[in-house]
Amino acid sequence: MKRDPAIVLVSGGLDSCVTAAMAGRQYDLAFLHVNYGQRTERRELTACSAIADHCGVGRRLIVDIGHLLQIGGSSLTDRHIPVPESGRIQGGEIPSTYVPFRNTHLIAIAVSWAEVIGAKKVFIGATEMDSSGYPDCRRAYFDAYNKLIRLGTRPETDISIETPLIDLSKEEVVRRGLELKAPLHLTWSCYKNEDVACGRCDSCVLRLKGFRLAGVPDPIPYLS
Amino acid sequence: MKRDPAIVLVSGGLDSCVTAAMAGRQYDLAFLHVNYGQRTERRELTACSAIADHCGVGRRLIVDIGHLLQIGGSSLTDRHIPVPESGRIQGGEIPSTYVPFRNTHLIAIAVSWAEVIGAKKVFIGATEMDSSGYPDCRRAYFDAYNKLIRLGTRPETDISIETPLIDLSKEEVVRRGLELKAPLHLTWSCYKNEDVACGRCDSCVLRLKGFRLAGVPDPIPYLS
Repeated sequence: MKRDPAIVLVSGGLDSCVTAAMAGRQYDLAFLHVNYGQRTERRELTACSAIADHCGVGRRLIVDIGHLLQIGGSSLTDRHIPVPESGRIQGGEIPSTYVPFRNTHLIAIAVSWAEVIGAKKVFIGATEMDSSGYPDCRRAYFDAYNKLIRLGTRPETDISIETPLIDLSKEEVVRRGLELKAPLHLTWSCYKNEDVACGRCDSCVLRLKGFRLAGVPDPIPYLS
Repeated sequence: MKRDPAIVLVSGGLDSCVTAAMAGRQYDLAFLHVNYGQRTERRELTACSAIADHCGVGRRLIVDIGHLLQIGGSSLTDRHIPVPESGRIQGGEIPSTYVPFRNTHLIAIAVSWAEVIGAKKVFIGATEMDSSGYPDCRRAYFDAYNKLIRLGTRPETDISIETPLIDLSKEEVVRRGLELKAPLHLTWSCYKNEDVACGRCDSCVLRLKGFRLAGVPDPIPYLS
């Protein structure tokens, strides 16, 4: 039986890989990957392509947006702002790795594409619990975005954002990935490096904690 | 006295020109112009730059986004879909010139920039009344977007979209522009042509109607 199409925003990290594995049980997947001038842009694209190959996803859209780099204001896009080590981020503070309003751009691209290819679902692997505290990764934000989509697209469309990981801890994300045989060895999460993960940035530390609590080794290489 | 900064989305058309003139009475303006692969991309940028020069706006961000062209689905970005003449659009129908979810992309860029430069207002010259009926040009859409901005940006920011033309007819837009001495002669609205306006597309027809009802000649050249 022909399955409905769904778009998955795939950065190439752990969360998007597991999200793709979850979505793939029900939908015919189309991967959207966005290069926005982040430090590890090439490594993330490599990871995304490897995951797509592994999962047999042929429909892919790779988009380059230069404006988040032009605009700056984040340590992920501005080389003059250092990427902080995880322990140096104060609780409740939004870290410098926050890219202003980034997810709004990524989801807007996915929604435009969904409208054209007739997909009703846009999957994004956002997690609210074990996250860096970015404002655009919270359930309330996605609820508001779904309302915007209903109002801002053609009336005959019915597109919504799905966030299957939103309430999961990183440990649970790893466990779901293992259950679904998601290709976690192909993912890349480090904010800083493109060859061997630093193990110290917020993204590495959250990921490593997830694998540790799940009781399995993280299959990617880290600086010792 | 130093004035607060505000961003204006300036396509180079009549509406954005008048919006800039209105915003300029109170704010220190920064112009955002987005090339998204639309047919009249170069002509619109020329108009935007001329308006910025005329108004003495030095702070400008010109952004190129290729993805709306990659995605297609609109006669403004896909050369295989003809731009309809105004009379051929059925009432209530969303015309093929609708670019799926476009305004969400444009405003997202403006909001990211606003967050970095500390602007609290993003002006857009959307009109709900004398418009082509695009879903992303209605008050309810902008209200929903304002909620998304509050949720999706740093908590210490206070950014909102301003739509001063939303309830105006095209005639009223022209009248406001004349009152404020906005450089209407520098604007470009035609969806099809870059040299002499076609006078027949929806955008030309709406604009011409505005000037006619305001009782003044439209200062730009049209095909006779």
